[in-house]
Amino acid sequence: MAKVLTKRSENYAQWYNDLVIKADLAENSVVRGCMIIKPYGYSIWEKIQSELDRMFKATGHSNAYFPLFIPKSFFSKEAEHVEGFAKECAVVTHYRLKKDADGKGLIVDENAKLEEELIIRPTSETIIWSTYKKWIQSYRDLPLLINQWANVVRWEMRTRLFLRTSEFLWQEGHTAHATKEEAIEETEKIVNLYADFVENYMGVPVIKGLKSENEKFAGAINTYAIETLMQDGKALQAGTSHFLGQNFARAFDVKFTDKNGKQDLVWATSWGVSSRLIGALIMAHSDDNGLILPPNLAPIQVVIVPIYKGNSELDKISNTAEKIRKTLTEKGISVKYDNRDTQKPGWKFAEYELKGVPVRIAIGPRDIANGTVEIARRDTLTKEVIKQENIAEHIADLLVDIQTSIFNRARSFRDKNTCKVDTYEDFKKILNEKGGFLLAHWDGTSETEQKISKETKATIRCIPLDGKIEKGKCIYTGKPSNQRVVFAKAY
Amino acid sequence: MAKVLTKRSENYAQWYNDLVIKADLAENSVVRGCMIIKPYGYSIWEKIQSELDRMFKATGHSNAYFPLFIPKSFFSKEAEHVEGFAKECAVVTHYRLKKDADGKGLIVDENAKLEEELIIRPTSETIIWSTYKKWIQSYRDLPLLINQWANVVRWEMRTRLFLRTSEFLWQEGHTAHATKEEAIEETEKIVNLYADFVENYMGVPVIKGLKSENEKFAGAINTYAIETLMQDGKALQAGTSHFLGQNFARAFDVKFTDKNGKQDLVWATSWGVSSRLIGALIMAHSDDNGLILPPNLAPIQVVIVPIYKGNSELDKISNTAEKIRKTLTEKGISVKYDNRDTQKPGWKFAEYELKGVPVRIAIGPRDIANGTVEIARRDTLTKEVIKQENIAEHIADLLVDIQTSIFNRARSFRDKNTCKVDTYEDFKKILNEKGGFLLAHWDGTSETEQKISKETKATIRCIPLDGKIEKGKCIYTGKPSNQRVVFAKAY
Repeated sequence: MAKVLTKRSENYAQWYNDLVIKADLAENSVVRGCMIIKPYGYSIWEKIQSELDRMFKATGHSNAYFPLFIPKSFFSKEAEHVEGFAKECAVVTHYRLKKDADGKGLIVDENAKLEEELIIRPTSETIIWSTYKKWIQSYRDLPLLINQWANVVRWEMRTRLFLRTSEFLWQEGHTAHATKEEAIEETEKIVNLYADFVENYMGVPVIKGLKSENEKFAGAINTYAIETLMQDGKALQAGTSHFLGQNFARAFDVKFTDKNGKQDLVWATSWGVSSRLIGALIMAHSDDNGLILPPNLAPIQVVIVPIYKGNSELDKISNTAEKIRKTLTEKGISVKYDNRDTQKPGWKFAEYELKGVPVRIAIGPRDIANGTVEIARRDTLTKEVIKQENIAEHIADLLVDIQTSIFNRARSFRDKNTCKVDTYEDFKKILNEKGGFLLAHWDGTSETEQKISKETKATIRCIPLDGKIEKGKCIYTGKPSNQRVVFAKAY
Repeated sequence: MAKVLTKRSENYAQWYNDLVIKADLAENSVVRGCMIIKPYGYSIWEKIQSELDRMFKATGHSNAYFPLFIPKSFFSKEAEHVEGFAKECAVVTHYRLKKDADGKGLIVDENAKLEEELIIRPTSETIIWSTYKKWIQSYRDLPLLINQWANVVRWEMRTRLFLRTSEFLWQEGHTAHATKEEAIEETEKIVNLYADFVENYMGVPVIKGLKSENEKFAGAINTYAIETLMQDGKALQAGTSHFLGQNFARAFDVKFTDKNGKQDLVWATSWGVSSRLIGALIMAHSDDNGLILPPNLAPIQVVIVPIYKGNSELDKISNTAEKIRKTLTEKGISVKYDNRDTQKPGWKFAEYELKGVPVRIAIGPRDIANGTVEIARRDTLTKEVIKQENIAEHIADLLVDIQTSIFNRARSFRDKNTCKVDTYEDFKKILNEKGGFLLAHWDGTSETEQKISKETKATIRCIPLDGKIEKGKCIYTGKPSNQRVVFAKAY
């Protein structure tokens, strides 16, 4: 266990990278900007997927699958969308390779040039709305509530594992509605669903809000977002839900006939979260010893480590350990019994701390004699010795307690690092000294937002949905404002 | 319900296409060769995925995710692999678009040309083994048992929904082992797992066997396959499992140190099934009325349709229907109650027949009076009236019975269409008249195989694992042979 992390206080970015690598979550691939998600990291993604998928289905959505490729011309159809998405992207120009002159290497076959280039989807609004045109004729075809789990590509110049990679995994919902009200209701339903997931499964508190014009999705009327705060005082956008109005219906000519026989353009939403959530999960909770995973998303919730000398001790301990594993498993708790003889207990302790397993149970010869086990919590690093009786109930309660504690700790950190500022001087000072969410008045113009952003690197994370209406003055221009907005430096 | 299918006897290929489209499974996209998997089709894929994923995990495999892009040069590293996979593929040459001269359209930015072209993965051996080099040093790192669920692209000229598309969904397992024996054992374990899945979930009987040199995977020592027979007498390869020897370890220099400190190249397997399985599922069982889905993979196992006049009848029926739905759901049966008032019962009957729902329950006023329901089986189109008491047990048993019946029917068809042939004349005659699996002696040479294939369009589907050892003469050359092999025309 010589896997030591850089301390957060020394270099937060390096700590993050060390942790992702050393906890076996992911690594960079030979292909620039693309990551390899390793089994342990992928198992966290599977937990995320499975819970979200259940929530999408419970709210009436179905999954489908649309092509990876989008014809280049599709991007030009929605004027704002093209600005946002058709620039840095992977372009397929040919469909064949052939052997080079010496017969060893491969070269592109110039005779196999595509008539129209294909773009690897950076997001699928265009290909999906070109399809919806065929699927939607009447109000009876609405609402259409579809989600897709897929890989997407945005050619990023500066990449960081999970947080920003050229290829990433995500889900994208694309819904079609007969009325504006219904589409807005859907957009809000989803941002609430995301908030529920991020708070109650990931244990990360969120601020729900609307994006400013500058920050909204290219092609949307409104973008709702959930914003989270990382331990270094930087914000991370964890999910977005877009009310697209009739923009994509107009671009792809998707109309429906209503109950009265009148034709109208269809109303749209789209929404997504990505493998970036794993980055948020890591940065919100973990410490200098490694990951801290919330029990609701931990691939292994409990690990049992035997402390023994010789096989006869191990046999006795294994007997007890297997019984405990069985009773925990029956309660739906995921348990690993690590009886490898190739590693010492101390090495295993450090390994499971690094990997963020919420509860560790250690069993030694004295425990066998006394009918006890030693339990350690990963989040607080505290230990207690308990009786083996009723261990399943005890652990089940403990997991609930850990889930709550992790959330409360993150919320308390977020609250401590959220402050109202009323002058631009204070704004800059606090931003530099401790970061966090700064609640400030703003005059509502893109111009001011851009100036502040250029001077301080802080952006408007959102206009909070539950923000108080209060009179104030823009910190930059002094012009009147009715509500504070959330500024922060962001990932 | 004006959705009428072409009859199988008239035009099997057209029947298949009609069915895929009209049962809302999939459709062609604007991007040539790529399909859109619609919600109903995708829900079948989700069932397939979920069962297979469970089986992979139960046998010790973990999921991970590797990049979509593979550097062009990687394909040249394994001599045979390059022949098979680096030809018809999607080639990414640029990473940026820019506005064209008139500012409206988009063109490829020639300043953003990649130094080395990237290929969209047609299969991931090369990118994965280039990664395994970093992951494997010692025997302690082995075996490495990894699976990936992903999209892949092979630029196909002639495509058919599910059966052959340029982009498709699949899983690919890639395992690494310390010994040859262990790798072969894994290859065989997986072909057995696939056979178990295809027979017991899809209800399609398989022949397990080895591929001939001509037909094996490019880069493999041996390819194991499961071969299935469709209703038109053509074979469909449903899954393959490859023993790769040390070929990829050699190509990417992946060595490990064994317990005695000796270095050796790692042994490899790879294996996959794809969304093509949905094509097999459709073609093996369905009839001129539509899909016939095996209960073990049907997204909806039971549909309840009310037969009523007026709201008061409907209320009474709905009351009973909801009770039945609840009791079935509690037994783990998936039920839909279709109480839409926009469609008549006859329309609904035809719709669910088209969509292959295994059991239909109809409830009318007389059933309410008598405490009965009418039950119809999709596979046999037979009906019976039963008492409402113990309906859950009855339906649960019925679903098991349907699953078995579907398999037995397919097996009986397969057996009827499998015959031994001893002369080339008979071979050609039977092949043309009824197709099916032809068991014939073959001299074991690629030359003969290619000649037969060229003259008859039949290929060797496999050398069956449970084939009897018997003396015989090659139907083409008369040379001696020890075992019959399976010939067929194939998808």
